[in-house]
Amino acid sequence: MRIIREGAVERASVPRAFVPTMGSLHEGHRALMQEARKRVGERGEVVVSVFVNPTQFGDGEDFDAYPRDLDADIRVCEEEGVDILFAPSVSGIYGELTLRAEPKVTVDPGPLGAQWEGVERPGHFTGVLTVVSILFHKVAANIAMFGQKDYQQLVLVERMSRELAFGIEIVGVPTIRDHDGLALSSRNLYLDDEQRRRAAAIPQALEAARRKASQGAGQAIDAARLVLVQSGLDVDYVDVCAPDLGPAPTAGAARLLIAARVGPVRLIDNCELTLGRTVQ
Amino acid sequence: MRIIREGAVERASVPRAFVPTMGSLHEGHRALMQEARKRVGERGEVVVSVFVNPTQFGDGEDFDAYPRDLDADIRVCEEEGVDILFAPSVSGIYGELTLRAEPKVTVDPGPLGAQWEGVERPGHFTGVLTVVSILFHKVAANIAMFGQKDYQQLVLVERMSRELAFGIEIVGVPTIRDHDGLALSSRNLYLDDEQRRRAAAIPQALEAARRKASQGAGQAIDAARLVLVQSGLDVDYVDVCAPDLGPAPTAGAARLLIAARVGPVRLIDNCELTLGRTVQ
Repeated sequence: MRIIREGAVERASVPRAFVPTMGSLHEGHRALMQEARKRVGERGEVVVSVFVNPTQFGDGEDFDAYPRDLDADIRVCEEEGVDILFAPSVSGIYGELTLRAEPKVTVDPGPLGAQWEGVERPGHFTGVLTVVSILFHKVAANIAMFGQKDYQQLVLVERMSRELAFGIEIVGVPTIRDHDGLALSSRNLYLDDEQRRRAAAIPQALEAARRKASQGAGQAIDAARLVLVQSGLDVDYVDVCAPDLGPAPTAGAARLLIAARVGPVRLIDNCELTLGRTVQ
Repeated sequence: MRIIREGAVERASVPRAFVPTMGSLHEGHRALMQEARKRVGERGEVVVSVFVNPTQFGDGEDFDAYPRDLDADIRVCEEEGVDILFAPSVSGIYGELTLRAEPKVTVDPGPLGAQWEGVERPGHFTGVLTVVSILFHKVAANIAMFGQKDYQQLVLVERMSRELAFGIEIVGVPTIRDHDGLALSSRNLYLDDEQRRRAAAIPQALEAARRKASQGAGQAIDAARLVLVQSGLDVDYVDVCAPDLGPAPTAGAARLLIAARVGPVRLIDNCELTLGRTVQ
């Protein structure tokens, strides 16, 4: 495996699949790497980037505390047969100038970036789309893998790639879950044992919503919210939208989005819903 | 010359220089094409795009009236030995969906896009950077040519290419001027004879500013403004900034920016200044 710490990953003549990450690699990331390999085959290239992007963290968020262990990440990538690990420095991505002092050109997600995660985390998706845009330019790939766990991010990256004509196919990879259904996330490391047990209310809330989906979005939301509150979680939002983040349809495919706090730790999850009475 | 009307211009193995235009090609565009050829040589490729971009025009601006003559543009490109003319439709760039109805991902120029042209034309540089970003992806070039006549645009595109890591060298090509110094512009076609004569006050104002530059930015601005007002032009702005659009230095290299109206026609121009007493 080649490790590249600066500059860019020069263009390849073989198909290339890209897995952008913030490191702290877990089974969820392994699933992205495995899907990447499947897409480009043995003669293609899988490139993983590890970059904890300061501009997508808000003031008071966990940028400094975010878990970093490049040696462990290297081992995971080697085990998964990754061809190239791209691990640039902050100045390698944003230049030597002080990050926040300079006026910067950014990628603006539009109104869909101000909803859900964007309410609690203003500027978050501007940071995400801008760094993904930079990484897409530095790792010229044909296809890129993103987890469905960060659903709003996945859809906004898909839109960016299509609307700005990056010509990169975006693949959403299903969420990997722990034995009790909790979605794998680097932030799960912050949970103590008791919080970890209570966090299982999140996948239970998804399940409760799925069971009520035939009665409409409102019923599904109420059911999910009840499960979260009964387990003592602080709900940031429970909402239903169309698969493309547009307004929820009255019937058919939709997405349930959840953000909730367990103690000091903020977790997000989501699932597909089929709204309305299904007539067979 | 190949003419491509949809999709993208597939990647080439030879050096490629790109000249994005809104058509209505004049001597200023020819200078861009000639510089493009010089940069990539005979074995390289020169690609010209012609696309009148609706998103960089404001309400009440001249999008519908903007001069369009693709046959004439084709002749100019052929005369200049252009290899590929890329002339996409609006839906080829933005998709079939209605342009303004959908939430869109855009490229945000940041605070420098809200000054000067951005005051009169809010959203203009978001439109410019977004379409240039799309065109850069659709015409994979190594180098791209922009006129110094649109100086704020040139600097913002340079910043975008660098900050978002497009890996495309941006070349600013000196302004081509008419016999009386008026910068060539497609919008000069809107001027009647009397307005055309009065428009010469703009290059005269640049010259007046240059003569006063050793006395500082304030003196240079006052001198330029006086020339414009005495010729009956409505001044939108006369300002001095650093070459990178930052605050004007007290001495050394700077840029004078002018926007003024001659009758209903809004014209812009700019020149380099050397501020402060030059000690030799």
